[in-house]
Amino acid sequence: MKAYSIDFLEEIPKYIQIARHIKNLIELGEIKDEEKLPPIRKLSDFLSVNNDTIVSAYKKLEQEGYAVQKIGSGSYAKQKDTNRRLRREYTETFKRIRNESSSKYIDFAGETSCNVVFPMENFKEVINEVIDRDGVNALVNQETLGYIGLRRSISKYFWNDKSRAEDILIVSGAQQGIDIVSKAIINVNDNVIVEKPTYNGALFVFKWRGANIFEANMENDGINLEAFEKIVKKNSIKCFYTMSYFQNPTGMSYSYAKKIEILKLAEKYDFYIIEDDYLSELIFDEKVKYQSFKSLDENDRVVYIKSFSKIFLPGIRLGYMIVPKKIEEAVESSKVNTDISTSSLMQRALDLYIIKGYWRDYIQNLKITYNKRYKVMEDTIKDILKDKVSFNSPGGGFNFYLKIDKSIGIESDKLFYKCKQKKVFISPGVLFYRNSEDGAKFFRIGYSQTEETKIKQGIEIINKILE
Amino acid sequence: MKAYSIDFLEEIPKYIQIARHIKNLIELGEIKDEEKLPPIRKLSDFLSVNNDTIVSAYKKLEQEGYAVQKIGSGSYAKQKDTNRRLRREYTETFKRIRNESSSKYIDFAGETSCNVVFPMENFKEVINEVIDRDGVNALVNQETLGYIGLRRSISKYFWNDKSRAEDILIVSGAQQGIDIVSKAIINVNDNVIVEKPTYNGALFVFKWRGANIFEANMENDGINLEAFEKIVKKNSIKCFYTMSYFQNPTGMSYSYAKKIEILKLAEKYDFYIIEDDYLSELIFDEKVKYQSFKSLDENDRVVYIKSFSKIFLPGIRLGYMIVPKKIEEAVESSKVNTDISTSSLMQRALDLYIIKGYWRDYIQNLKITYNKRYKVMEDTIKDILKDKVSFNSPGGGFNFYLKIDKSIGIESDKLFYKCKQKKVFISPGVLFYRNSEDGAKFFRIGYSQTEETKIKQGIEIINKILE
Repeated sequence: MKAYSIDFLEEIPKYIQIARHIKNLIELGEIKDEEKLPPIRKLSDFLSVNNDTIVSAYKKLEQEGYAVQKIGSGSYAKQKDTNRRLRREYTETFKRIRNESSSKYIDFAGETSCNVVFPMENFKEVINEVIDRDGVNALVNQETLGYIGLRRSISKYFWNDKSRAEDILIVSGAQQGIDIVSKAIINVNDNVIVEKPTYNGALFVFKWRGANIFEANMENDGINLEAFEKIVKKNSIKCFYTMSYFQNPTGMSYSYAKKIEILKLAEKYDFYIIEDDYLSELIFDEKVKYQSFKSLDENDRVVYIKSFSKIFLPGIRLGYMIVPKKIEEAVESSKVNTDISTSSLMQRALDLYIIKGYWRDYIQNLKITYNKRYKVMEDTIKDILKDKVSFNSPGGGFNFYLKIDKSIGIESDKLFYKCKQKKVFISPGVLFYRNSEDGAKFFRIGYSQTEETKIKQGIEIINKILE
Repeated sequence: MKAYSIDFLEEIPKYIQIARHIKNLIELGEIKDEEKLPPIRKLSDFLSVNNDTIVSAYKKLEQEGYAVQKIGSGSYAKQKDTNRRLRREYTETFKRIRNESSSKYIDFAGETSCNVVFPMENFKEVINEVIDRDGVNALVNQETLGYIGLRRSISKYFWNDKSRAEDILIVSGAQQGIDIVSKAIINVNDNVIVEKPTYNGALFVFKWRGANIFEANMENDGINLEAFEKIVKKNSIKCFYTMSYFQNPTGMSYSYAKKIEILKLAEKYDFYIIEDDYLSELIFDEKVKYQSFKSLDENDRVVYIKSFSKIFLPGIRLGYMIVPKKIEEAVESSKVNTDISTSSLMQRALDLYIIKGYWRDYIQNLKITYNKRYKVMEDTIKDILKDKVSFNSPGGGFNFYLKIDKSIGIESDKLFYKCKQKKVFISPGVLFYRNSEDGAKFFRIGYSQTEETKIKQGIEIINKILE
C-alpha cells in the first residue's frame, strides 16, 4: 500500500490529488496494466479520507482512461497502451538507427549534429596535445566543478568574462544539469512549472523528485503569461523549466518582453528559472535575437544550463551550468553525490579545441550546412504539405513542429507507425505532453540527421500517408 | 510548512517519525541553524496529531542535540556544528590537495590509485587507435547501455562469459550506479538497510529518494546478522547496500557464510542486494577469497556495481553494473534520464586497453606496489601506535580503520584538525555515521596516495598528537 501514500495539499480537492497520484504510478509503470487497485474501504482507511473521496478519484481515473471498473470485482489500472508501446517503439527505433552505420531510415527524429562532417583530425590533434601536456593528470584528476581551464575558456569565449570561471560548473550534458539542480532545489511536493508541450527527459526528473507539475501552453513568443501568472499567484513555485530558444518540440523562442516579465515574476514570487539553452547557436532568421534569460537576469534567479551535445558532439557528454550564488554549494554537493565529477580528459580536449578556434570554425561550418537544410525543409513543407499541416517558422534550430489539419483523419501516433513502415522516422506529438491526447494532431520533424535530397524524399512519403 | 509534511508509517510512533524527519531536514540544511521550528500548535494542526506528540518530538530532538528550547520563545534548530564544519573542511582539504601538483600534505584520506606511475604511452596508443579505427563514431555515438565492445570485453575478461554483454550497463562511475539504481527501485518511504558505518555518498543518494534508512553494525566478517534479520523481519525492505570487500571505512570483508545467509534472506523477504565492488582486485592476504554476492546469487537478487575509478583512473569516470532482469528496463530508463549515456571515446579506449592486456599488466604492477605499502603501513601502525589504537587487518584494499584507545582523551574530529595543522590528512570516523558521535573514537588512514617513507612520517606525526 505504501506507494499509495500522499502528502495532501490544502488547496486542491483530495480526490483529484488521489487520482493524479495513481495516474502517475500507472504512467511510471509502478502500477501495472490490469493490476487491481485497492478496494475503496481499504484505501480510504489508509489515506484517512471518506469512501466517497476514493469513489470520486476512481471515477476520475476511469474518465481519463486510466482505470476500468469490473462489476462485482473492483477497479483495475489501465495502461495507456498506445502511449507506452509508442514510447518503447520510438526508443527502439532510435537505437536501431544508431547502430546501423549506414541507415536505411530517413531520420527526422534525431536531434544531434552527428551527421555533419566533423574534422576529426583537429580533435585528434588536441587530444594528443593534452596527453603530452598534462600526462596522467588528464586521467586521474577529479574536479567537482570541472577542469579550471575549460571553465576559464567558457567564461572568456562564451561570456566575455561576464560570468566568471568560479561560477561555472561542468556537467556531463544538459540532462545531468537538470538532474543535479533538481536534486539540489526540488523536494517532494514542491511545485514546478513547465511549458506545454515540453521535453520528456525534464518531466522524468521532476517526477523523480516528487514534484507537482503545472503546465501552461507554449505560444509563438513563449509561455502563455496569463496562465503562468495565475499559477504563480496561487501556488508557491520552486522553479520554472524553460527552453528559451527553439523550444522542444514547438521550435518557438521567447520574446524579449516575455523574458523580462517572467524574470520580474521570479523575483516577486521567489522562484528559480531553469533555462535549458540547447540550440541557440543555430539562429538563421535575423529577427531572432539572442538574449538568454541568464544575460537579462539582475536578481540571480536563473539556473543556466548549456548543452554541448546537441550542437557539437553528443558522445563527449559535456555541458555546463551557471547557478545562483545561493544554491551553488547545494548544486556542487549534488554533483559529487551524482557522479563525483565529469571525465577530465574530454574537458581538457574541448578546452584546447575552443582555444585553438576549432570550435568557432566548426560551428560556422555547421551553420552554413544547416541553414541550407533548414530552408529546404521549410520550403518543402510549404510546397508539398501546405494543405495538410500548419506551422510557425522557428527561424533556427533543428525542428519544425507541424499541426495536422483537422480535415485529415489521422493522429500522430498512427502517423508515426505508418511512417516507420516506410522507413521514415518522425516524432509524434503524443510524446511531448503529460496527457498524450493533447499531442494527437502534432508531429515534429527535424533535419539534423538528414541530407537535402532525403529531406525531400521523406516529406513526399509523409505527404502520401497524409493523403 | 510544506517541508514538514510526513507520510506516517503505522509501525513507528509518530513523535519518532516527526523527530527523524526534522533531523533529516536539519542535516540536509533545509532547516538552517538557529531557525525557529514551527510552534507546537501549528505543527500539530498541520500534521493532524496531538500537541503532546509534537512536544515529545521536540524533546527528542533536544536530547539528540538537534534543537534547543528558548523559554517563552519556542524551539530552535541546531546544526551539529562540528560535523557540518568538519565535512566542509574535509572537502576543502581534498580540493586543495588535488589542485596542488606537488602536495605538501601527507595524504592518508585519498582513495584512488592516482599516485602510482601509470604507463601513459599505452593509453595514448589505444586512444589514437580508437580515433583512427572508429573516426567520428567514437565522439557522436550515444549508447544507453554503453559501447558494445567494452561490454563484451567485460563479459569475457572479467566474467568468463558468465554474465553476458547484454546484461552489462556501463555507468560513469560507481556513484552514478548507486544513483540510477536507486531512482529505478527506491521510492519515498521505502526501507533501505546499510552497514554501520558506511559510505556517505550512498547515504546521500538514499536520502534523496526519501528512503527510511536502517543500519546494523559492520563486524569483522560482514554485517551483524542478528540485527539485520530483525530489521528484515519487521520491515518490508527494498534493498540492502553493501560493500562486500574492504568495506568503506572498516576495511572488513564478508565471509562466505554471511553472504549465503543474506542471499537467502533476500529471496525469502524479497529485497535486492546492491553490491558495491570497488576494490576487490587488491586482495593481499590469501585468506581473503574473492566471491562476490553476484557470483553466488541464484535468484537474481543482486545489483552488482563495479567501479573502475578506485583501482584504475578516477578521471575517466567509468564503471559498470549488472542488474536483475526484472529491473533492467527501469534502470536503463533511469540512465537515459540521468545523463543519456557515458562518454563513448573513453569506453572505446578502455575496451582496447583491456583487450591488449594493458589492464592486466597495470593491475599486476599496482598490486606489487600497493602490497609493499600495505605492509609498511600495517607494520608501522603495529610498531608505533600499538598502545594507542586497535584495529583488524583488512587483508587488502587501501585503508586501515583504527579505534583510538579509551585511555586517550581525543576524539576523531579533534584529531583531524590537529593532524591537518601538521599537514597530515586523515578521515575522522564521524564522517561515516548517521549519528556522528558513533564515530568519535575511530579514524581511517590509507596509503593509496602516499609513498612508503611518507607513510612512516605521517604515522609518527599522528603518534605525537595522540601522545
